[in-house]
Amino acid sequence: MSRNSIGKNLILTSFGESHGAFIGAVLDGFPAGLEVNFADIQREMNRRRPGQSSITTQRNESDEVQLVSGVFEGKTLGTPIAFLIPNKDAKSNDYLHLKDIYRPGHADLLYDQKYGHRDWRGGGRSSARITAGWVAAGALAKQWLKQYHQIEVTAWVSQIYNVLADSTEAIPSQDAIEQSIVRCPDPVVSEKMVEAIEKARLSGDSLGGKITCAIQGMPLGVGEPVFGKLNAVLGNYILSLNAVKGISFGDGFDVASKTGSNNNDSWVYNKETGKIGTSSNHAGGIVGGMSTGEPVFMEIAFKPTSTIAAMQSTINSSHEQVQLEAAGRHDPCVLPRAVPIVEALCHLAVMDLLLESGSKTIN
Amino acid sequence: MSRNSIGKNLILTSFGESHGAFIGAVLDGFPAGLEVNFADIQREMNRRRPGQSSITTQRNESDEVQLVSGVFEGKTLGTPIAFLIPNKDAKSNDYLHLKDIYRPGHADLLYDQKYGHRDWRGGGRSSARITAGWVAAGALAKQWLKQYHQIEVTAWVSQIYNVLADSTEAIPSQDAIEQSIVRCPDPVVSEKMVEAIEKARLSGDSLGGKITCAIQGMPLGVGEPVFGKLNAVLGNYILSLNAVKGISFGDGFDVASKTGSNNNDSWVYNKETGKIGTSSNHAGGIVGGMSTGEPVFMEIAFKPTSTIAAMQSTINSSHEQVQLEAAGRHDPCVLPRAVPIVEALCHLAVMDLLLESGSKTIN
Amino acid sequence: MSRNSIGKNLILTSFGESHGAFIGAVLDGFPAGLEVNFADIQREMNRRRPGQSSITTQRNESDEVQLVSGVFEGKTLGTPIAFLIPNKDAKSNDYLHLKDIYRPGHADLLYDQKYGHRDWRGGGRSSARITAGWVAAGALAKQWLKQYHQIEVTAWVSQIYNVLADSTEAIPSQDAIEQSIVRCPDPVVSEKMVEAIEKARLSGDSLGGKITCAIQGMPLGVGEPVFGKLNAVLGNYILSLNAVKGISFGDGFDVASKTGSNNNDSWVYNKETGKIGTSSNHAGGIVGGMSTGEPVFMEIAFKPTSTIAAMQSTINSSHEQVQLEAAGRHDPCVLPRAVPIVEALCHLAVMDLLLESGSKTIN
Amino acid sequence: MSRNSIGKNLILTSFGESHGAFIGAVLDGFPAGLEVNFADIQREMNRRRPGQSSITTQRNESDEVQLVSGVFEGKTLGTPIAFLIPNKDAKSNDYLHLKDIYRPGHADLLYDQKYGHRDWRGGGRSSARITAGWVAAGALAKQWLKQYHQIEVTAWVSQIYNVLADSTEAIPSQDAIEQSIVRCPDPVVSEKMVEAIEKARLSGDSLGGKITCAIQGMPLGVGEPVFGKLNAVLGNYILSLNAVKGISFGDGFDVASKTGSNNNDSWVYNKETGKIGTSSNHAGGIVGGMSTGEPVFMEIAFKPTSTIAAMQSTINSSHEQVQLEAAGRHDPCVLPRAVPIVEALCHLAVMDLLLESGSKTIN
Repeated sequence: MSRNSIGKNLILTSFGESHGAFIGAVLDGFPAGLEVNFADIQREMNRRRPGQSSITTQRNESDEVQLVSGVFEGKTLGTPIAFLIPNKDAKSNDYLHLKDIYRPGHADLLYDQKYGHRDWRGGGRSSARITAGWVAAGALAKQWLKQYHQIEVTAWVSQIYNVLADSTEAIPSQDAIEQSIVRCPDPVVSEKMVEAIEKARLSGDSLGGKITCAIQGMPLGVGEPVFGKLNAVLGNYILSLNAVKGISFGDGFDVASKTGSNNNDSWVYNKETGKIGTSSNHAGGIVGGMSTGEPVFMEIAFKPTSTIAAMQSTINSSHEQVQLEAAGRHDPCVLPRAVPIVEALCHLAVMDLLLESGSKTIN
Repeated sequence: MSRNSIGKNLILTSFGESHGAFIGAVLDGFPAGLEVNFADIQREMNRRRPGQSSITTQRNESDEVQLVSGVFEGKTLGTPIAFLIPNKDAKSNDYLHLKDIYRPGHADLLYDQKYGHRDWRGGGRSSARITAGWVAAGALAKQWLKQYHQIEVTAWVSQIYNVLADSTEAIPSQDAIEQSIVRCPDPVVSEKMVEAIEKARLSGDSLGGKITCAIQGMPLGVGEPVFGKLNAVLGNYILSLNAVKGISFGDGFDVASKTGSNNNDSWVYNKETGKIGTSSNHAGGIVGGMSTGEPVFMEIAFKPTSTIAAMQSTINSSHEQVQLEAAGRHDPCVLPRAVPIVEALCHLAVMDLLLESGSKTIN
Repeated sequence: MSRNSIGKNLILTSFGESHGAFIGAVLDGFPAGLEVNFADIQREMNRRRPGQSSITTQRNESDEVQLVSGVFEGKTLGTPIAFLIPNKDAKSNDYLHLKDIYRPGHADLLYDQKYGHRDWRGGGRSSARITAGWVAAGALAKQWLKQYHQIEVTAWVSQIYNVLADSTEAIPSQDAIEQSIVRCPDPVVSEKMVEAIEKARLSGDSLGGKITCAIQGMPLGVGEPVFGKLNAVLGNYILSLNAVKGISFGDGFDVASKTGSNNNDSWVYNKETGKIGTSSNHAGGIVGGMSTGEPVFMEIAFKPTSTIAAMQSTINSSHEQVQLEAAGRHDPCVLPRAVPIVEALCHLAVMDLLLESGSKTIN
Repeated sequence: MSRNSIGKNLILTSFGESHGAFIGAVLDGFPAGLEVNFADIQREMNRRRPGQSSITTQRNESDEVQLVSGVFEGKTLGTPIAFLIPNKDAKSNDYLHLKDIYRPGHADLLYDQKYGHRDWRGGGRSSARITAGWVAAGALAKQWLKQYHQIEVTAWVSQIYNVLADSTEAIPSQDAIEQSIVRCPDPVVSEKMVEAIEKARLSGDSLGGKITCAIQGMPLGVGEPVFGKLNAVLGNYILSLNAVKGISFGDGFDVASKTGSNNNDSWVYNKETGKIGTSSNHAGGIVGGMSTGEPVFMEIAFKPTSTIAAMQSTINSSHEQVQLEAAGRHDPCVLPRAVPIVEALCHLAVMDLLLESGSKTIN
């Protein structure tokens, strides 16, 4: 395997298997001098941690993250920041039955074929547990973006299965989102989503859904306009998240059925603020790969969790066709816990581009 | 600006402005020993070139590509291959009126803000003309993929504005696609798409649409499963193409409303061929970031061309609100010419991953 | 700070400060399936560890390395391998007097100027202690190189101050080297070197020296001949080691006073082995940036340790000229402990190039 | 082959074979807004071009460089700058006798072994002719360094064979250097060097030598202190130049026989200028991988040209031992023409590090 790092200026290196000693990450390129709010980092960890509510996996990890380098006297040193998260509640024996049987929709068969040796305990390296390190790193980027650029990322669940939130241009508050265990800001819709998830769990099934994400406070000109487009960089980070099957920006796939005259956003100049903006925001805050200064909007499609308890046909490592009822502890729907991960990836991606040299506007 | 290269093992470096002396590209990491079919490279150039039909821009470029390094006695040397495409039919004066007025939906304002100095002739570096070099490089990757891996990429237009092709699992033939000037394999739908485009052009407007793309012949295990996922790499390349606002894989955004039990593809083993595959292909040939051996399917949303002749409100470089009727030669709909570009990007992305070291299955 | 990773295919990411919780490293791109000999890794750690003999620093660290990811059931998984080495014997108060006074020849002033915030305990990130993680990673690369390519790296001390080992073309045995606490294989010379170091220590001074390094068993053609030359890659790794002030290959600086007719090595073909080689090896096993199959030879110059107890003039953080007698525990001569670090860097560099895709000969 | 690019923020991509249509380079990451002095770029080309004096190769190339992208209205756009240099005076037939016979000390055998297909005309990709593109790119970096940082690089020939220039701490003027066709600023020594080269040429032989290089005007803190050390980055660039067999910094290999007390440079603060510096400069302007503000000094050892007319024993492609008298046009000593190449590489390396993000001091 290779490519366990992402970023050019702010480089996240990920390591760890689900039931190994530690999950972790190293963040290189983080500037010196930021006062670190450790409680806020742990708060993001808690938003992602398993066992946080009735609708997530029941694996119970406190996910207390340790920053073992790069911070001294409460401030970043400019040196690499290593994050360690111990794996405490690993029940490896629960996965023994998956050692030689390949789950449909799951990567374990491909790991075996590609590497010839696989850590089958809790999904090993293919577990979404590895994102714990990403969330820790993203939480630090979040503090830097907030302090130096007033940039804020907000993600929420806008669809679970056939339950859709009303689409609205307003960006919900973090509070409204966090009051819902599904992380959907509309309480009525949230309730229906919880019901759908509980029903799926009882039937040994799982559900897909959609996350909407907004980035506010972007200055104009973030993104390198050929192979470092803001949308391509965000896309690369977000598509690195297990279960993501699609991403779109602004009006997304709806642009396919539009005309230029109703899709273009007119440039406007605000004399009072001295800022350039657009009169509408079909583009989702990105034109030609660079930020326009308007909020960036993304929609992200997640497939239903592949590991389900319901009976499925598959093959084993001897190539025999077998029936599988997968045990182990899994989320019946990944979206509630994916919200902080999506935010973390956006924080890392945007900070990486803001650190790019040679940009006139944004330094 | 930075980030004009893409790829890790097969690195495409892009250069050139729309009305400069040359558009070009350098392809590094291409293995030695491939017999180059120059006519086939030019054929791909012709599929992308402007002026190829009544529904594309009328800029008339032969786009004859020269390979000025890396090939000797008709075979690749293993050294970098430089592609040069002269700009011959540049009518820079047609763009004088856009020197100080910023087109809605277009990057020229952002270039000015970010770099303080911009080549306004024909869109400069933001012109899709720069993809001529990408298509040339992709055409060479196509030959390598065909010869050494029997991999074949097929893209076609599946939607223009409100005209949709019937969705079908069958992958159309290149011949069927090329018989249509829109590059939609269904002749009846193709005709309607042409009509829609011509109508848009006459009214000084432009149209969006959707391209579907399939990659056949993929071995199992292509893609690095953390930050080099096949879908993330493809996403990064495809989202680098101007006008793309969304990309999805397999069932795409439909997975949001599915359950695990109806979305998972069962693994099956074919005793005759000795090959592993899946009984369905909701995943679009990618699981856990690696290819399953089934065809890879993508859908790509394109916005309508931003430069239109219809009157629009915008600002100029003095921040005054003005009305613009943009002249110059532009495609009323980019999709017909985007088909070979999408294919080229897929060829480059897949070859890059196939050249990744340390993969057991695919070497 | 940035650039704490090195390598393209086998990527070493380094983190940690001298008195932080852990020093560590992550090694990405290491192939799956190697049976790990943990004792041999620890053996390399022991060769580097402080306090190993009377002539090294008396900081006493067991440097027991933990591999917390990437290895399962004793074999590499192909996933990133994280190495953790706890810092146990940190006496931070010994460095309080260096918090605001800058040591001559030392980086602490530059860290303060560049980052504005510095971990002054034990040198922080500028401590050679960070190489503990490099040695652990290199020890694993050593096992891979030995098993799959029969490549062996041997480094030894060939000069300390004015004590020089007889130069000889023969590559000494590891046993002969390890019997000397200076790591000079000639027992008589070694004794003199020990005396020189002890004398320097007593006078509060330090000594420079030279390490010679040989790489045996290289296949022909390792190295990418433009910007990945074997010598440039080795140079980049070795020059990343604190205190190195020069590196040369083969006849090194002596080539400046030679003619082509007495410097060129004639190609010869050995009919019995079927191998190509050269009749002499002035080139030190590298021609045009690629290995010739003959042993690679390097010489590396190390400056004397900058931190010394003798009185020196310098400035403090208030820019006042002051006198400094530096305390803390330091090696009076870094070379004995640098031997395993040089070897580790060579192992990593050569393995990185062997994993490069597209090379015909070496796969 | 791979790795034909160098740099992280300012990326030079090199392409071309000695007798192909063009030698060239693409420079990505160059900031917008520099007024380009084209004559000064061509002046650097002329310093490198073949046929410039009686002691260089007689291949006669004007080496007129074209900037075909990235510059508009005389100023850089921030977009990639492509440089093209046509190969005009290629006499490929002169190399027919080298098609199947491998020159001692030359890479052609290794190219054949590694790639299986080689451009034997004029050395193909292994020719130092490819540095024409590097010099063009470096000339642009030189203008940027001069204008924005008052940094100046000066290289000169300090040894040819057994003729040594007096070593002196004074950095000679460019004028003094350019008055000598050997590029040694001491006219008496220069004369002896010319004599030595002419004598070598007449006897069909070649000579090695040494170049000294100084970088003046460096701010404090350039260089990333772990794997981006100023010396490691310079080393990586310089060791990429054919024929370089060694590089050292400051007192270089002499530090091996020194003590800390006579090698450390004391920090001093100049109250008038408000600048920090050192009282001596044994370190050659680099401590802990970062610039101290004092001039950077390097010494670089070059081997004698491998291609010589004198009779040598070697093998051919059938593995037979044969005698070779190599024809073709070659420099009897590469150093005079290597001076501008060394400078170009330093310009590129230093600018790359100056563009690194996150550095407090140097932005």
